[in-house]
Amino acid sequence: MSQTIKYYWEDMPIGFTRDLGHIVPSAQEIKEFARQFDPQPFHLDEEAARQSVFGGLCASGWHTCAMAMKLTVENLLLQTSSMGSPGLEGLRWQKPVFPGDTLQLHYTITDSKALRSRPDIGMVRARWDMFNQKGERVLEMDGWGMFKRRAAATP
Amino acid sequence: MSQTIKYYWEDMPIGFTRDLGHIVPSAQEIKEFARQFDPQPFHLDEEAARQSVFGGLCASGWHTCAMAMKLTVENLLLQTSSMGSPGLEGLRWQKPVFPGDTLQLHYTITDSKALRSRPDIGMVRARWDMFNQKGERVLEMDGWGMFKRRAAATP
Repeated sequence: MSQTIKYYWEDMPIGFTRDLGHIVPSAQEIKEFARQFDPQPFHLDEEAARQSVFGGLCASGWHTCAMAMKLTVENLLLQTSSMGSPGLEGLRWQKPVFPGDTLQLHYTITDSKALRSRPDIGMVRARWDMFNQKGERVLEMDGWGMFKRRAAATP
Repeated sequence: MSQTIKYYWEDMPIGFTRDLGHIVPSAQEIKEFARQFDPQPFHLDEEAARQSVFGGLCASGWHTCAMAMKLTVENLLLQTSSMGSPGLEGLRWQKPVFPGDTLQLHYTITDSKALRSRPDIGMVRARWDMFNQKGERVLEMDGWGMFKRRAAATP
C-alpha cells in the first residue's frame, strides 16, 4: 500500500494533461456490473438490448464512470497526493459503450485554486474525455479533485 | 425480463417525488468495488484508511453512485418507460460512506420538457438526495432522464 508521491498540487497546473490509458469491457463484465447496480434489460440481456433504443447490450453509464476511475487511479492518482473529490460540475454519457470497445481516456486540468480554509490543500478542476475505437466520445466529465500541497501556504 | 410500465413521461410531472428505499454497504462490498474500480488505500484497507483524511474505510464515490442507481432502478425505473440518461448537471459527494451505514435515497423531479426532435420522448430533470442514518447528506445528484411518452405529441 506504500506509494511514492510524484505529484503534489503545485505539480499539476492548469494545462497539465495526461493520456490515462485504455480499457476494454467484456460482455460478462457489463452484465455483472448491471446485475449488481443497474439491472435494466439493455445492460443485462443481449436479446432485450437488441430491441432497445441502444440496439445491443451496452454498459451502465455508472460502469463507464467506474472504468474511467480505474484508469485515473492506476495511471495518475496513485502517484499523487490525492485526497478525494468533492464532486462534479457535469457529466455526459454521449454514446453507448458496447462489449469489446476500446475506451481511451484523456485528462486535462482546466482550473486550479488554493484553499483559503486549508493552507495544506489545493483544488484542481479537470476534464475527462473517453473515446471509443471509432473516435466517438462516449463520456465527458468535468469535476474537482483535492490534493495535498508540497508546501503549505504561508499567510 | 418482462415488465409492466406504470409511469410514462406524462405520469412524472415536476414535483413527482419518491422514497427509493435504502441500502447498507458492507466492508467486503466496499473493498470489492474498490479493488475493481477505485484502488486507493482508503477504500481498500482499514489501517491505511484510519490514517487518511477520512478516518476509516469508506466507499468509493462511484460505489455510492452505483448504489443510488441500484435503488433508482429497482424502486422506480423498472416500472417506467425509461430510455436512459444523457447525463448529470452536478454531483456532490458530501460525506464519506462507511461500512454499515444505512443509506436512504430520495428522488424529486424538478423539471420536465418535451423533445421537439423526438415527439415520442420526454425528458425529466431530477434531484437525488442520499442520507445516512445520522441524517447527514452523503450524495446529491442533479441529472436528466429520458422516458417514452404515453402518447406521441401531435404537431
